[in-house]
Amino acid sequence: MIYLDNAATTYPKPDAVIQAMDYANKNLAVNAGRGAYHFAREASKVIADTKNKIRNIISADRTASVIFTPSITIALNEVIHGMKWMPGDVVYASPYEHNAVARTLNAVQSSCGIKIKLLPVNQDTLEIDVEKIKYEFSQDKPKAVFCTHVSNVTGYILPIHDIFTEAKKYDAITVLDSAQSLGLVNVNAQELNADIVAFAGHKTLYGPFGIGGFVNVNNISLEPSIYGGTGSDSLNLQMPDDKELGFEPSSMNIVAVNGLNAALSELNQSKLLDKEQKLTNYLIEELRKIPEIKLHLPSDLTQHVGIVSFTINGMVSEDVGTILDEDFDIAVRTGYHCAPWIHEIINDKKSLGTVRIGLGQFTSKEDIDELVKALFEFV
Amino acid sequence: MIYLDNAATTYPKPDAVIQAMDYANKNLAVNAGRGAYHFAREASKVIADTKNKIRNIISADRTASVIFTPSITIALNEVIHGMKWMPGDVVYASPYEHNAVARTLNAVQSSCGIKIKLLPVNQDTLEIDVEKIKYEFSQDKPKAVFCTHVSNVTGYILPIHDIFTEAKKYDAITVLDSAQSLGLVNVNAQELNADIVAFAGHKTLYGPFGIGGFVNVNNISLEPSIYGGTGSDSLNLQMPDDKELGFEPSSMNIVAVNGLNAALSELNQSKLLDKEQKLTNYLIEELRKIPEIKLHLPSDLTQHVGIVSFTINGMVSEDVGTILDEDFDIAVRTGYHCAPWIHEIINDKKSLGTVRIGLGQFTSKEDIDELVKALFEFV
Repeated sequence: MIYLDNAATTYPKPDAVIQAMDYANKNLAVNAGRGAYHFAREASKVIADTKNKIRNIISADRTASVIFTPSITIALNEVIHGMKWMPGDVVYASPYEHNAVARTLNAVQSSCGIKIKLLPVNQDTLEIDVEKIKYEFSQDKPKAVFCTHVSNVTGYILPIHDIFTEAKKYDAITVLDSAQSLGLVNVNAQELNADIVAFAGHKTLYGPFGIGGFVNVNNISLEPSIYGGTGSDSLNLQMPDDKELGFEPSSMNIVAVNGLNAALSELNQSKLLDKEQKLTNYLIEELRKIPEIKLHLPSDLTQHVGIVSFTINGMVSEDVGTILDEDFDIAVRTGYHCAPWIHEIINDKKSLGTVRIGLGQFTSKEDIDELVKALFEFV
Repeated sequence: MIYLDNAATTYPKPDAVIQAMDYANKNLAVNAGRGAYHFAREASKVIADTKNKIRNIISADRTASVIFTPSITIALNEVIHGMKWMPGDVVYASPYEHNAVARTLNAVQSSCGIKIKLLPVNQDTLEIDVEKIKYEFSQDKPKAVFCTHVSNVTGYILPIHDIFTEAKKYDAITVLDSAQSLGLVNVNAQELNADIVAFAGHKTLYGPFGIGGFVNVNNISLEPSIYGGTGSDSLNLQMPDDKELGFEPSSMNIVAVNGLNAALSELNQSKLLDKEQKLTNYLIEELRKIPEIKLHLPSDLTQHVGIVSFTINGMVSEDVGTILDEDFDIAVRTGYHCAPWIHEIINDKKSLGTVRIGLGQFTSKEDIDELVKALFEFV
């Protein structure tokens, strides 16, 4: 099988990650930090070490809280439900957001009467219009701004620095969704002006399922919204007043944490980015040779990496995926990719969403050649 | 090391579980059900098969929804936040509840004005007083009743059938927390009159961290409270109207699911129960030989299994744990065990909680002998 669904989850994982999980399963899989015994403390050390590696990769300092959650979805729920919303608060989100942000904000809109506004995108370039943002923020001041770093639909690298710098002029809370960027594109939280960076273990970081989280870089005040045991302050019916533990109820998945730790040790970001950019450019070049294919790309391809979406006139995207799977053993992803807003702009509803090619560190030029050959055969 | 903290998490796991996870990591770790390719469908089949095994073990029929979550804590949050609470609603909980229930109910009390009442426990027997429950329910009608099956502090098996049968006379929603029972003590949801059974993968089921959930046996109406992508109905800003998917945002942790699947295949409940009951009785017998030790047990030891808590007059429990760890390499758990209410009743605050011995299928008679020998040395 040729696996081109790395935007859903990177596969395979590096050997070191699989080995670290197997090791943890056999030697470390106890309830960390909740026992008075050395074994449990060893597990706690692994967690602390992994959190430090997360701080390092986003250039956060030692005072930044790192919260581990079972997924970036849970992390974004904790961030969004944790903010003190008032009716009429204006929150901006890029139209590239995933449903982990979009549906959660929508729920807060229903319950608290906040106002969700989408950042303006130029229909022709498929890029964020920063000048328009300046105007919109001045007209309707942002309380918070949510932005994904790399679109999981088009691979577009959003101009986070420009957007968040503008947001900071209004003291808005800035939240970066780095699911498709961390480990691949440089994320420097301070330089980007990001207050909170949410991350997924199992995507561009090449870690396992079961671990994600968020870094509260500037220690923004949040309230817990998921409750449970924390192995501490147990007689207190409220979550402990602790910027990490207060958001980490239930037993820590030490097996997944150890896998993530290995992934972070293995990571060679600049090598990865270089490789994926070359592959992405090659893929685009080759796909452009097929006249029936319409690519949905940002105009400036220097701000793009790893993910390419296309539609074929007269074909439903799912059918393209099925043919690639059944006749050519090529795995791609089709449909709306859990991103509810952007499809209006890229105008792909006739095809019921796009065919998405997600590249990864184990993708080869030959994989792309096979894909393009297959497409030439049936398109 | 002698591991006696199985109530926190069972350790080690059966070889089959570790192997199943390693296999999944290498061969199955893609985004299930969200791709159009055969590999993703294979992962979906494993999930469906595991859900069937969960239905079987609690004797639920095929129409019961099984929701997989990253932990039983998330599951209980979804159940509690998912109910339609009205100010003044009366919810009963056993005083043996874990903070996954207690703190979550407390949050709903703050936000919605519900009234939490604890089921009466006899101070001498440390057992639920079913006769008093009948009276209390008649005076203050229950909207919902939450009960843990086996106390994670005392090992007491609560009279679930009696409690829930009484609750059902008032059409209350009955929720069973089976974290410390499923796989060890028989759980027949229909016989117990349980509407919802929440479960943890990594405790008495001998599965891994990262997978838990709840079975909505009688398809009680719940609203989603955690939002995200579901790989379906993606343009809809609300969670899909689906009794399983609507509560399963984010990528499924197929590695943990495959581990749980293997655990369920391996499980020999009656053999386990028989072994653990004998070990528990032996442990109690031996501990009773040490006069300084006070055991916190239910009077009727036929309704007890696997967990024994004790205090030592004049000693802080944590110190007992530290000595056992440092001088004897024996791992136990000390403190309040994330159970906020029961300590008032067992009256262990002078010792700052109990020393808890959690037995498991890999515990031997010799382990218990070592523990008792150690206690004799320093108590």
